[in-house]
Amino acid sequence: MNRREPLGIAVIGAGRMGADHVRRIDRTIGGARVAAVADVDADRAEAVAADIEGCTAHTDPAAAMTAPGVDAVLVASPGPAHEATLLAAFEHDLPVLCEKPLTPDAASALRVMEAEQALGHRRVQVGFMRRYDAEYVRLKALLDSGQLGRPLMLHNRHRNVASPAFFTSAMLITDSVAHEVDATRWLLGHEIRAVTVLRPAASAGAPEGLRDPQFVVLETDGGALSDVEIFVNCGFGYQVQAEAVCERGTARIGDGHALVTHTAGRWGGTIAQDWSERFAQAYDDEVRAWVDGIRRGEVTGPSTWDGYAAAAVCEAGVRALEGGGRVEVDLVDKPDLYR
Amino acid sequence: MNRREPLGIAVIGAGRMGADHVRRIDRTIGGARVAAVADVDADRAEAVAADIEGCTAHTDPAAAMTAPGVDAVLVASPGPAHEATLLAAFEHDLPVLCEKPLTPDAASALRVMEAEQALGHRRVQVGFMRRYDAEYVRLKALLDSGQLGRPLMLHNRHRNVASPAFFTSAMLITDSVAHEVDATRWLLGHEIRAVTVLRPAASAGAPEGLRDPQFVVLETDGGALSDVEIFVNCGFGYQVQAEAVCERGTARIGDGHALVTHTAGRWGGTIAQDWSERFAQAYDDEVRAWVDGIRRGEVTGPSTWDGYAAAAVCEAGVRALEGGGRVEVDLVDKPDLYR
Amino acid sequence: MNRREPLGIAVIGAGRMGADHVRRIDRTIGGARVAAVADVDADRAEAVAADIEGCTAHTDPAAAMTAPGVDAVLVASPGPAHEATLLAAFEHDLPVLCEKPLTPDAASALRVMEAEQALGHRRVQVGFMRRYDAEYVRLKALLDSGQLGRPLMLHNRHRNVASPAFFTSAMLITDSVAHEVDATRWLLGHEIRAVTVLRPAASAGAPEGLRDPQFVVLETDGGALSDVEIFVNCGFGYQVQAEAVCERGTARIGDGHALVTHTAGRWGGTIAQDWSERFAQAYDDEVRAWVDGIRRGEVTGPSTWDGYAAAAVCEAGVRALEGGGRVEVDLVDKPDLYR
Amino acid sequence: MNRREPLGIAVIGAGRMGADHVRRIDRTIGGARVAAVADVDADRAEAVAADIEGCTAHTDPAAAMTAPGVDAVLVASPGPAHEATLLAAFEHDLPVLCEKPLTPDAASALRVMEAEQALGHRRVQVGFMRRYDAEYVRLKALLDSGQLGRPLMLHNRHRNVASPAFFTSAMLITDSVAHEVDATRWLLGHEIRAVTVLRPAASAGAPEGLRDPQFVVLETDGGALSDVEIFVNCGFGYQVQAEAVCERGTARIGDGHALVTHTAGRWGGTIAQDWSERFAQAYDDEVRAWVDGIRRGEVTGPSTWDGYAAAAVCEAGVRALEGGGRVEVDLVDKPDLYR
Repeated sequence: MNRREPLGIAVIGAGRMGADHVRRIDRTIGGARVAAVADVDADRAEAVAADIEGCTAHTDPAAAMTAPGVDAVLVASPGPAHEATLLAAFEHDLPVLCEKPLTPDAASALRVMEAEQALGHRRVQVGFMRRYDAEYVRLKALLDSGQLGRPLMLHNRHRNVASPAFFTSAMLITDSVAHEVDATRWLLGHEIRAVTVLRPAASAGAPEGLRDPQFVVLETDGGALSDVEIFVNCGFGYQVQAEAVCERGTARIGDGHALVTHTAGRWGGTIAQDWSERFAQAYDDEVRAWVDGIRRGEVTGPSTWDGYAAAAVCEAGVRALEGGGRVEVDLVDKPDLYR
Repeated sequence: MNRREPLGIAVIGAGRMGADHVRRIDRTIGGARVAAVADVDADRAEAVAADIEGCTAHTDPAAAMTAPGVDAVLVASPGPAHEATLLAAFEHDLPVLCEKPLTPDAASALRVMEAEQALGHRRVQVGFMRRYDAEYVRLKALLDSGQLGRPLMLHNRHRNVASPAFFTSAMLITDSVAHEVDATRWLLGHEIRAVTVLRPAASAGAPEGLRDPQFVVLETDGGALSDVEIFVNCGFGYQVQAEAVCERGTARIGDGHALVTHTAGRWGGTIAQDWSERFAQAYDDEVRAWVDGIRRGEVTGPSTWDGYAAAAVCEAGVRALEGGGRVEVDLVDKPDLYR
Repeated sequence: MNRREPLGIAVIGAGRMGADHVRRIDRTIGGARVAAVADVDADRAEAVAADIEGCTAHTDPAAAMTAPGVDAVLVASPGPAHEATLLAAFEHDLPVLCEKPLTPDAASALRVMEAEQALGHRRVQVGFMRRYDAEYVRLKALLDSGQLGRPLMLHNRHRNVASPAFFTSAMLITDSVAHEVDATRWLLGHEIRAVTVLRPAASAGAPEGLRDPQFVVLETDGGALSDVEIFVNCGFGYQVQAEAVCERGTARIGDGHALVTHTAGRWGGTIAQDWSERFAQAYDDEVRAWVDGIRRGEVTGPSTWDGYAAAAVCEAGVRALEGGGRVEVDLVDKPDLYR
Repeated sequence: MNRREPLGIAVIGAGRMGADHVRRIDRTIGGARVAAVADVDADRAEAVAADIEGCTAHTDPAAAMTAPGVDAVLVASPGPAHEATLLAAFEHDLPVLCEKPLTPDAASALRVMEAEQALGHRRVQVGFMRRYDAEYVRLKALLDSGQLGRPLMLHNRHRNVASPAFFTSAMLITDSVAHEVDATRWLLGHEIRAVTVLRPAASAGAPEGLRDPQFVVLETDGGALSDVEIFVNCGFGYQVQAEAVCERGTARIGDGHALVTHTAGRWGGTIAQDWSERFAQAYDDEVRAWVDGIRRGEVTGPSTWDGYAAAAVCEAGVRALEGGGRVEVDLVDKPDLYR
């Protein structure tokens, strides 16, 4: 492919997750386009594809992969369908972003791993998206820097407002704690050697029969412990927190403070050094909103009147700075165009 | 224009700000492409355009605006050049995103405003990007909701590590406080009627002769006060904070806690209710990193091995949940492909 | 006086403030006793004195000062009565703790100051109690250390839920901002050279006719600015905050985090190094509660059963540590005495 | 005893803890006096008693208990000596505050419990002082209120900078986790039924051979789990934190924010409603410092000059409020007495 062309992606699965990825590729990020969409529900695939220039709709994942302009595959179908889709992608040697779980069990995951090894190069990225969360990224960088010494314990909290109707006690592990399993392995660079699951009394807020919350302790081959509170009917909010306890300090993420460390008699965090760090999101959203507006035929946002008013106030401010005292601001009447 | 096609943008000015916008349009956001770049320095324009499929380079802004595929103009040239560029864009009736200041003084801003009125519709969005910052957006929504009653005061802090060599005492007002001028007008929905500038002792950390810090008090036509500490050589970091004091409570942004309110005997903030809110950035960056990697010919991120290991640990976890006690995890040897 | 004897104090004024000081001297702090109480209301003085061994009641402050065992005077009567009381105390050369204001105006304060000078040594401590608040004390120590460089600005917030019925617009200055006047002078070590009072729109929550809030700017002879938001009908709580902005960093107190600094790219605070620092209050309150209980004829608090149960659990814990795994705890039946 | 007389206390043990309690009773709290001190080291007992009016020194605890004026006993000797001392106090039917541990093992604690039952009324309060810590008290009150529903889990952190030389792996349980054992029982109102101790890799910062940190899981008869990280060589500070996870929210103490709750979509805490709450400590310390100063023959703190300067500034402030604008402050020259 020509690197200067946008990457053409086939999205497999057009449910909540798939449709969200389609929107993301089409509107939010740059450098890529949705070239094909597949879903077992043909209407759903059509509906998603209809809004996108040059995007074809399919019911067969393999057909979507061979549609014109497809360079890569994003798998967002249910977990049991992943193995077949991944093997099909390998046949066309296409890179794949596969939503977690890779497959529902270790045996099928092993078969996928063997097929990928047969290709001789990596084709799969698994959708453990916490590795891309800004706070986790900073925590990982801090641990890797060695500043805090060796990590000894990781305390994790994972709370959801309420679980969906189909949730089982085992899914607290396979669907939810799966994230902490990967986060533990990635943050610490260890493999997990044993698992203990403790079961406090079930919450009155949990559906009848669901063991919720659970408390899971993971032991790693590096001698670290990682404990996980999983509570999928906590009622009050969605929270993901992690605190690494190291030989010379701790570091915590997920309670609204970015990365907070405790080390050498002080707690705290870092301060941005530059506006481009503090306002990166604002600049992106500003330009995105402007582009979206124009495509809808609108110009919104701060107007020429706003630019004029700021200039008039700043002029008065400079006079106040130079002369001392209070300076009044005179504005012309506001034109109708800006009301 | 066809709304399903990406928006073609002419970027005027290829300095730090302009180049950053080019990168943003090309890589970070969706739905738009850089169609032309103009800079008085031809080499700089060429260098920026070279990396982008179908992008032309110019020294004349007006030429860039008529280049093929240009639907809109982003102005990132120095302020004194804005007026001419805006008038040129009006001739072609192109929508413009104009970096602040709109123009350097009120008189020229008035001329631009008159020209836009002559067109009969809004064409200009001014680059007051704080209106797009997630924290400011939440503060604005809270004030507009009326929950806290009428705003009476706004306390602002604006601190930079160090000022550039060319900074003058007046630029603390025109370049820096200009942001709080707009933020005050926008957050409160008031116009500013008077300005007072107080001058504490200059910091030893400021360049000789620079009146830094300054303390500016803005009075609005709605009876509110907005005070601004501007300190452009504070040495320790970049900070932008705002605290609105209303009849029934206060709301503060900018110290790393998102929006914190004080009302009815309680302080605090809101908790995300959903993973799509908490991890929106992570999902965007995950897919963006995957796309960028493939365009460079790489597959990185969590691998098939990571997917397999998570599946194996979760299987052990389910056995631990069901049987109680501690369950060991058996992994196959890690294949070379994943080392 | 014999330093090993408790200090005998005459408390002048038995209103809310005076009664609170009587309770404090009698129950909360050590080394002192209330020897006499005076109030214009004889019944009120009697009521307060009745509970205290050897304490006499008076209507005349001068009589209270000469009661048996009086070594010092605490003045908690209304401000207009202070001058006469202070002069009477000077006649007996007694040390005085005088609630603020020293006197209601500068002229009377000058007269008191002259009388004290005539004595030739200091007798008066004024009740600016913020100088004893742990957070203010830490802020003062930090400023004095010079670590942050010279202080340039001090931002103060002073908010009350609601003002008493008799409050006037001027009392926001004389009764409330008086605290920030002293705090500014003390923290910075400067005298105040000028005052500006700005009046935003009055809050709908303030009584008709009261200018509330106000925004006061103090200029010091050291070139610093100290701004004060005073808002005595904020409705939501009592808040006193101060942020010192210095040449190399800022330090803030009063929002529940103890002292938070921003300096050299980091924000944060200190961590206690010792249990005696973290739990000083708990130890004091533990022993105080035990003493109070015994004087009432009660023994409460953690019981022998609690001591036994802790011992039994710790024994099981040590077996679990040594042997690994889970160890059950056996307790005897709980005796009736501890139910 | 006469309740209006101070309570006479015999302090048994004059080491760090005992001497600290002597200072506390003598200087910090009201209503009590140290009547006798006992220590196996006669010189140490004499040294502590020497500073206190009417306090006798002893080497035999039983002799101290029968010294003149003794109404109660505070036991701060080493744990193995507690049983004999408690039994001696029971003989004189004296109330006892016994530092934890009550006794070193469950068998001896049972013997003490039987002896107290034989007396027929409670005489012992055990020194689990966390029950008196303001943050724990608030957490307990919140849990008891039922607002958050039933507690399901309690996450505890207990960290010390460094352990003393004599510390053993078992002492992490018996000396340190003992506090969390009591806190768990008290906060939840449950008894503990089983203990599991997990051992992550020992920190490089711990002395050779010490299993530090440890991770302890307590299971209660109410179905709750309480996990404890104990890390006595964490190096960076002393930290005690607890987070209760309940059916409808969480509540956390110990990270410098007082009590923080997460419930119904919001996180946060309460705001003081009154100055007497916010500044209680300041008032106590103000009067205590004044008393201590006078006993040393000094008058310090805010002076008459400070009272005068505040009055002068407030007078100028009232003129500024009434007239608008900036008003200068005129002060007389500062007299030598106040320099």
